[in-house]
Amino acid sequence: MRKIFVIGIGVGDPDHMTIQAIKALNQADVFFIPDKGAEKAALRDLRTAICERFIENADYRTISVDVPQRTSSGDYLASVDEWHSRLADIYARLFEHELEENEIGAILVWGDPAIYDSTLRIIERIRIKGLALEIQVIPGISSVQVLAAKHRVVLNQIGESVLLTTGRKLAHGFPDEFGSVVVLLDGTQAFASLAEPDLDIFWGAYLGTDDEILISGRLADVKDKIEAARKLARQQHGWIMDTYLLRKSDRGRC
Amino acid sequence: MRKIFVIGIGVGDPDHMTIQAIKALNQADVFFIPDKGAEKAALRDLRTAICERFIENADYRTISVDVPQRTSSGDYLASVDEWHSRLADIYARLFEHELEENEIGAILVWGDPAIYDSTLRIIERIRIKGLALEIQVIPGISSVQVLAAKHRVVLNQIGESVLLTTGRKLAHGFPDEFGSVVVLLDGTQAFASLAEPDLDIFWGAYLGTDDEILISGRLADVKDKIEAARKLARQQHGWIMDTYLLRKSDRGRC
Repeated sequence: MRKIFVIGIGVGDPDHMTIQAIKALNQADVFFIPDKGAEKAALRDLRTAICERFIENADYRTISVDVPQRTSSGDYLASVDEWHSRLADIYARLFEHELEENEIGAILVWGDPAIYDSTLRIIERIRIKGLALEIQVIPGISSVQVLAAKHRVVLNQIGESVLLTTGRKLAHGFPDEFGSVVVLLDGTQAFASLAEPDLDIFWGAYLGTDDEILISGRLADVKDKIEAARKLARQQHGWIMDTYLLRKSDRGRC
Repeated sequence: MRKIFVIGIGVGDPDHMTIQAIKALNQADVFFIPDKGAEKAALRDLRTAICERFIENADYRTISVDVPQRTSSGDYLASVDEWHSRLADIYARLFEHELEENEIGAILVWGDPAIYDSTLRIIERIRIKGLALEIQVIPGISSVQVLAAKHRVVLNQIGESVLLTTGRKLAHGFPDEFGSVVVLLDGTQAFASLAEPDLDIFWGAYLGTDDEILISGRLADVKDKIEAARKLARQQHGWIMDTYLLRKSDRGRC
């Protein structure tokens, strides 16, 4: 039986690695490293830095995974489904050919494997197809948590709910029945077009890295500043990852 | 200026400690340890185990914090507000008298300080009253993440939101506009009275510890089993901490 570790490695600060993740890195025989092209070169460097710092023996193999582009058809779910199917075929072949029985393979995941990441979904497809795999998931510090820590805020308000959602969903309007809304995967700055007058925003980009940017305040007051900072940083780095918390101002900052 | 580290220490597995948390433990001069009485003795033992394992020099002081009971009046928010006010007074006095200027105090928080924990709120009250404090928040692996990791599930469904909520709120009905609902702080087993026929539940108690219990399946099929396991475990241990994920069955497990 082949074993696969799906390891959350945080979002950029190597000090966010857990002891469990470090132990798992040191047990793995083969690392499967997705190659998404030049755009994410900075992330690849960070991942390499983590491996070099924490893996004690050099007796492991690294297999590059050629990640195909997702075809963006009109139907979002169908295009994701088709993309995951292709990825499952690619990983299945690599697990079969590059990993001996009784060896341990590892996939490193930014943040936490349970939070807006599809690695576990793709592996489940491989298992359903019949390849026997034992899966162990190692949680990691997510961007949501680094965002809250750096702004020194509690995500929830007292006794209230927290909604984790996407820029795509936020673009349909602020779900104001909730105390707090955390937005991930927002490529279109959906916050900037919200009409609510009384929102606070806690925004962060490149969280946990040396390039980290934090901006907070009344949304109406700081949204132009965030848009400008985001645009400039994206130009400088060639990519950006950002996350933010929105909440009603009148419910207090804490 | 006094400095306070608010350190997330995970929920029970010492291997969930991050490098950042371990470094912070080793820099602290004084640990402020809440004493909530016999009920949480098991948690106190876990915390002690973490300190003994990770703190390298023994040159620190420990101050026990006598946590008052919250008076449960009819108005939940008012009673929490009054309780936090008393806690802020208690901590302010201890920070002033037990921590020298330029020393570092530490408060250890189960899980993550940003997720359903009030330590940061209480410290903000102290700062508003005028005591100069520099705060650093260190994120930790939360029960939500351990739950998902152990069940090997992704919290969100593709492109969908995740609602983090409380048992108290769930008791008003399942918010079925969301793909996934994670319930924390449920003392009354609100899941058992849900009428929806097509929910899956992923339940866990004492997550990350040797006493961990995991049960998953169709809610209708496993809710009696969870209720029985919960009741028995609570009798055995004298306390229980549990968390669960609910989602519509027809949207798939992954």
